[in-house]
Amino acid sequence: MSSCAFSTSTLCETLPNHEAVCKKPSDFKKNCISADMSQLKLTWRNSMTWKQTGSRLKCRALDLKSNDAFLKGQVFQLDDVIEAQQFDREILSAIFEVAREMETIEKKSGGNQILKGYLMATLFYEPSTRTRLSFESAMKRLGGEVLTTENAREFSSAAKGETLEDTIRTVEGYSDIIVMRHFESGAARRAAMTANIPVINAGDGPGQHPTQALLDVYTIEREIGKLDGIKVGLVGDLANGRTVRSLAYLLAKYNDVKIYFVSPEVVKMKDDIKEYLTSKGIKWEESADLMEVASKCDVVYQTRIQRERFGERVDLYDEARGKYIVNRDVLSVMQKHAVVMHPLPRLDEITVEVDEDPRAAYFRQAKNGLFIRMALLKLLLLGW
Amino acid sequence: MSSCAFSTSTLCETLPNHEAVCKKPSDFKKNCISADMSQLKLTWRNSMTWKQTGSRLKCRALDLKSNDAFLKGQVFQLDDVIEAQQFDREILSAIFEVAREMETIEKKSGGNQILKGYLMATLFYEPSTRTRLSFESAMKRLGGEVLTTENAREFSSAAKGETLEDTIRTVEGYSDIIVMRHFESGAARRAAMTANIPVINAGDGPGQHPTQALLDVYTIEREIGKLDGIKVGLVGDLANGRTVRSLAYLLAKYNDVKIYFVSPEVVKMKDDIKEYLTSKGIKWEESADLMEVASKCDVVYQTRIQRERFGERVDLYDEARGKYIVNRDVLSVMQKHAVVMHPLPRLDEITVEVDEDPRAAYFRQAKNGLFIRMALLKLLLLGW
Amino acid sequence: MSSCAFSTSTLCETLPNHEAVCKKPSDFKKNCISADMSQLKLTWRNSMTWKQTGSRLKCRALDLKSNDAFLKGQVFQLDDVIEAQQFDREILSAIFEVAREMETIEKKSGGNQILKGYLMATLFYEPSTRTRLSFESAMKRLGGEVLTTENAREFSSAAKGETLEDTIRTVEGYSDIIVMRHFESGAARRAAMTANIPVINAGDGPGQHPTQALLDVYTIEREIGKLDGIKVGLVGDLANGRTVRSLAYLLAKYNDVKIYFVSPEVVKMKDDIKEYLTSKGIKWEESADLMEVASKCDVVYQTRIQRERFGERVDLYDEARGKYIVNRDVLSVMQKHAVVMHPLPRLDEITVEVDEDPRAAYFRQAKNGLFIRMALLKLLLLGW
Repeated sequence: MSSCAFSTSTLCETLPNHEAVCKKPSDFKKNCISADMSQLKLTWRNSMTWKQTGSRLKCRALDLKSNDAFLKGQVFQLDDVIEAQQFDREILSAIFEVAREMETIEKKSGGNQILKGYLMATLFYEPSTRTRLSFESAMKRLGGEVLTTENAREFSSAAKGETLEDTIRTVEGYSDIIVMRHFESGAARRAAMTANIPVINAGDGPGQHPTQALLDVYTIEREIGKLDGIKVGLVGDLANGRTVRSLAYLLAKYNDVKIYFVSPEVVKMKDDIKEYLTSKGIKWEESADLMEVASKCDVVYQTRIQRERFGERVDLYDEARGKYIVNRDVLSVMQKHAVVMHPLPRLDEITVEVDEDPRAAYFRQAKNGLFIRMALLKLLLLGW
Repeated sequence: MSSCAFSTSTLCETLPNHEAVCKKPSDFKKNCISADMSQLKLTWRNSMTWKQTGSRLKCRALDLKSNDAFLKGQVFQLDDVIEAQQFDREILSAIFEVAREMETIEKKSGGNQILKGYLMATLFYEPSTRTRLSFESAMKRLGGEVLTTENAREFSSAAKGETLEDTIRTVEGYSDIIVMRHFESGAARRAAMTANIPVINAGDGPGQHPTQALLDVYTIEREIGKLDGIKVGLVGDLANGRTVRSLAYLLAKYNDVKIYFVSPEVVKMKDDIKEYLTSKGIKWEESADLMEVASKCDVVYQTRIQRERFGERVDLYDEARGKYIVNRDVLSVMQKHAVVMHPLPRLDEITVEVDEDPRAAYFRQAKNGLFIRMALLKLLLLGW
Repeated sequence: MSSCAFSTSTLCETLPNHEAVCKKPSDFKKNCISADMSQLKLTWRNSMTWKQTGSRLKCRALDLKSNDAFLKGQVFQLDDVIEAQQFDREILSAIFEVAREMETIEKKSGGNQILKGYLMATLFYEPSTRTRLSFESAMKRLGGEVLTTENAREFSSAAKGETLEDTIRTVEGYSDIIVMRHFESGAARRAAMTANIPVINAGDGPGQHPTQALLDVYTIEREIGKLDGIKVGLVGDLANGRTVRSLAYLLAKYNDVKIYFVSPEVVKMKDDIKEYLTSKGIKWEESADLMEVASKCDVVYQTRIQRERFGERVDLYDEARGKYIVNRDVLSVMQKHAVVMHPLPRLDEITVEVDEDPRAAYFRQAKNGLFIRMALLKLLLLGW
């Protein structure tokens, strides 16, 4: 549509599949929202998808309250998967149902062929073999085909000076969907704004890694059986780990959630997330006592302390690293139904002796990444 | 055949599918052509394909005048695609018809399966992700499968001292067609002479990149609607760019073509191409006025000035680089039906503001590479 | 089974498909074999497969004497392919029959689809393009799909400190079979002990490369028509070449075999293999006269002298390298039915002039690697 009259607030909540096409961001402001660009960004972050074609911004408001939108055969609400913030509990719940179907598909011999004839390009500007193999397995388990590159950096800006936008315009000519890993925050959104085919963010630098966030929530639901009312202990590097930040963000969409932060002083959870949780009425507290937290929680989510965050302060790294280890002692105080999660890879922050305990959920969690990615590929290419 | 009686001239023009098998190049000379080896090479460049098995040279003359040869089900005239010089206007025209069919195939959901069961090996001795993805997409769009390597150099001469010939003999055992990129001029021909399966040259150093040449000519025909009588401005690095050299060569096969060379003094078009054009009756002129050329041409073919050609003379590079930019001003003098082309990647020799103009054809040109490669794979593996 | 009463000796020879599950290696010893761990290892090397799940060792004894076990539709005797020592002549003979069938399958147009829906992960911790392409071609020729990584090292211990075991647990969630190349001896066995899906060793450092050993024996049978009674000359670097060591080991399973060792003094065959051959009643001798050996042998198996084994002693390398060359002179004394083999890549230890002689079997040998790998993939995934 060439113009639209709704206000910022109604845009976010009530107008499904409403499109506003404007020539410039400033037109967009004038015609569509009485807001400045920072609000535009905020708006998009919560309920909209947008595309930039040339200098045009195309924006679509979503009403995720309507359950009809999840019926079989319906178009998927998202054009791209860029950020955890695109998802609310209704769409998460619907995606998780598809992921469950994928678990049965994966087990059938001969595989499934619903994506036969579709081509996925895995455009990785930095290597991440684990994530790449998970996406490529997802595509192939559904009968699709893959074009792979792990050295995308070589034919990009870095090597010959080509812009990301030009690269995307070329690669979209060869494929039906792009899965992109990039070293720069915001790169995935730029790719999505350029591409006329779906883009999935497989991690962009310190920015987002939305499929990891989704598989974490999916794993909690699969393991514990619910999301409302759960108690989650987030352990380790909470300052730098994007997985725990995204997870905290998504958990805030559920009711009566309680979050415990257990981390060395130097890598504490930052204020932005704490304030966000408070604003959503989510209870949280910081604790230095892993044993006590473990005894109360449904989920102990351990993370790796990353050496590269400490620069030359090896002493601080060594201190931080050894502080909170999930071992047999921690298991012994955990409840029977509780689980240990970890985004992997792990070093020694979970000892190997924990692996055999049925409550060690981290390899099942990695496997769930396959099902979530199968579901997203199916939804973006075929719809519900 | 063990011998053949035709002369050099008739060989090139009149004897279709005639084979001469000789034990040594000198025998070849004696039995088949009253020419020295430089003429043999010339002959081959224009109308023949040859294979070397062990020390044997096998040569097949083509009569490209016969249109029957392009009928459905007929064998493709070429065993390999090594050089732009293998193509004349009849075979180009027939290949372009197949490429047009490929455009419709690519759009069909579910893809096409005519190459099901065929395996293409992409043997890249230097990375060229763009070209590789284009070939691999072409193969997969037709139902074929791909074996990929971008570090072929590691299992080749460079690493352990194996010859290219030995590598080819091994890889041909694993695949049905080889797409090779190499850093040395002439490597593709050596591979083709060794292999018993088709070889496509995806660029060999400063030498040839024939599929790029074909997609350029195809794009002109698609965009302008004809090749006879067109006016083409070649802009930028004309000394080193193999694309503009090959394009000039192929355009000489059409009637009433006019070529304008617009380039900084240090990277002017070399005399060999100018002489060749003159010998073929093609009009050309050099100009320093991009605006004037742009106003007359059907095609403005811009190229990147490559920094690596200037060594330490950064001053010369900077001067050359900024001299001829295609921007909105250039667009404003161009005719309505004219187009801007570029082999990509581009830096700032075409400004981003040009992208939105419908006359910006460079991303369509990149996409045409897919159709040309689909056509060549089909023709080499299945015939017409 | 929770316990088993058989002794070490009967275990190896008579009890087919008998399983012993024990909680610890020491239990295994107590319950299953009256042997220490070195004997357990020895036992396994000869006739058993085992898996470690957590701290559990699961061991299965094989009775390879029973020919019923090779009937169509039966389960394959091996869970993994880790070492040449897993094979005896009965199972080799049965595998070779399947490889022969694969030769006909490979020639059929449209390929074969028996592995459709199966996913193979090629997990290469060091690049080996030749071996990787051979495995991937094998999988794709049978309709299967492949997940490729040649930089596995980056998401492994080396990069972030993850253990091989953790990597395997993740990758087995994405695939149906793992083909692994590693730089450390013993890595393949560790992977097989962890994985719940089949693992094929595609070379682990100075350790094993069993599919190479199998294709060598297969090539001798295909070329000479028999294995009993053959005379084989092993030439070149016999100290470091794992292929000649494995080949000598496997040839000891046949009757009336005679082996000649022809090598520079510095890279002589080591005593362990010589003692093993003697213990098996295999005749062997060392010779410095390649011509005399070549005139007697059915197979002249040449190998490359590896420069990297000599460190800074370039003089020793140059001396060793030039000493035994297979050229036209060697061919001239060889019998008409005899063949020259080489694991490739070759430098100049076989001159190019030899290539054209029908007795040059090395490129056919490389191709046989495809058939052997097709056979193993089929057997591990589908059984006989």
